[in-house]
Amino acid sequence: MRNIKLVISYDGSRYKGFQKLADTDMTIQGKLETVLSKLTGENIEITASGRTDMGVHAISQVANFKTNSYESTNKIQKYLYMYLPEDIVINSVEEVDERFHSRYNVKSKTYVYKIDNNEYPSPFTRKYRAHVPKKLDVKKMKDASKYLIGEHDFSSFVSSKSKKKSNIRSIYAVEITSKDGNIDIYVRGNGFLHNMVRIIVGTLIDVGHGKIEPNQMQNLILAKNRSIASDTAPAKGLVLYDVKY
Amino acid sequence: MRNIKLVISYDGSRYKGFQKLADTDMTIQGKLETVLSKLTGENIEITASGRTDMGVHAISQVANFKTNSYESTNKIQKYLYMYLPEDIVINSVEEVDERFHSRYNVKSKTYVYKIDNNEYPSPFTRKYRAHVPKKLDVKKMKDASKYLIGEHDFSSFVSSKSKKKSNIRSIYAVEITSKDGNIDIYVRGNGFLHNMVRIIVGTLIDVGHGKIEPNQMQNLILAKNRSIASDTAPAKGLVLYDVKY
Repeated sequence: MRNIKLVISYDGSRYKGFQKLADTDMTIQGKLETVLSKLTGENIEITASGRTDMGVHAISQVANFKTNSYESTNKIQKYLYMYLPEDIVINSVEEVDERFHSRYNVKSKTYVYKIDNNEYPSPFTRKYRAHVPKKLDVKKMKDASKYLIGEHDFSSFVSSKSKKKSNIRSIYAVEITSKDGNIDIYVRGNGFLHNMVRIIVGTLIDVGHGKIEPNQMQNLILAKNRSIASDTAPAKGLVLYDVKY
Repeated sequence: MRNIKLVISYDGSRYKGFQKLADTDMTIQGKLETVLSKLTGENIEITASGRTDMGVHAISQVANFKTNSYESTNKIQKYLYMYLPEDIVINSVEEVDERFHSRYNVKSKTYVYKIDNNEYPSPFTRKYRAHVPKKLDVKKMKDASKYLIGEHDFSSFVSSKSKKKSNIRSIYAVEITSKDGNIDIYVRGNGFLHNMVRIIVGTLIDVGHGKIEPNQMQNLILAKNRSIASDTAPAKGLVLYDVKY
């Protein structure tokens, strides 16, 4: 069987998340599988690098699927562009080694969290940036973010709904940029727990507002207790930015 | 009476244009006047730097209105933010000299036309960039744009519906930037005729595709004949960028 790799952009605003659900067709996976099954005449199931939650976006989600169809990658891309809704776009289609697995083979993932820190937000990015009207101290946020780098038990930064056996993950880099009141927080790591980036960002926002001092980050991590970190930042600011294999 | 100046951003996607219409409340002017009338208890009428058409956006539209209300500019801005739909945002509210007129006092206006020139468009800018999948030669477009600079009769570049007495306008500058497949065309002038920027852009797109040679621009201008310039580019790529007084 052929193994086809897709790189996918989507505006998650209208969707219930990436993962297919029984009671709605408004999932990214559902939309992709419907169109691919129509193209190939097969019952296509795709595997992605991971789920994204309801309302979360992707610039580069990666997925793959197995097929006996002989359609060219070019044809597959054109077909998907024609039949997918305009808020899901395939950046590339590539035939890959049969052993390639979108989830198991991930080396690192990068998310970016986007904030509009202007008192009055831009109407053009209202669906893609969380609006934080009160001025953030970006220097303090950068100082705080350094404590996140490395291998840690991130139990303070995981949704209480998570059922993962281990909460140990490695964060390789956090980069924060600020321009014209738009603040972008890039977080790169070997894997992320449920809501982990959004809870980290919620905590960095409290740091930026002076509610938490940067050097308290270490204690928040060591506490391994979700209730002492800050609120989960809204879904609409989060974008899956890059997946490396 | 006080004279209040507003600087307004809007995502024009949902609207029938700036100007108030009798048969719909989906105009920018209509939304603004409704909220301002509610705030002041007066029948507020606003004057803008000019209309924008259905589906056209603004980063900095300027408007003003007269009022006897004593509400502070800060209160007016907060009230508008609270009651306007989220795709219309007031960037600033300022009390100005009673003689200030948003339309008559315009010295120059800048529009930017935004193109997504990638084969497959980004889902995030799908409402704010016209998708031109075939590669454009930006060098040729820049060469062609030079012929537009100066005072000309722009009869070749005006909607046949226009009823203006004179089609003579001055273009001060055209700047074209290109990055990651996104092409932005900035056009600054003393005033623009109906559809003028969109017909100029439609023509520059034909230049970029090699259908028109850059040096033919001069003849297109001299012809003063709408039928020999290219198609009007789609509304969604056009943004009123700046108004100078």
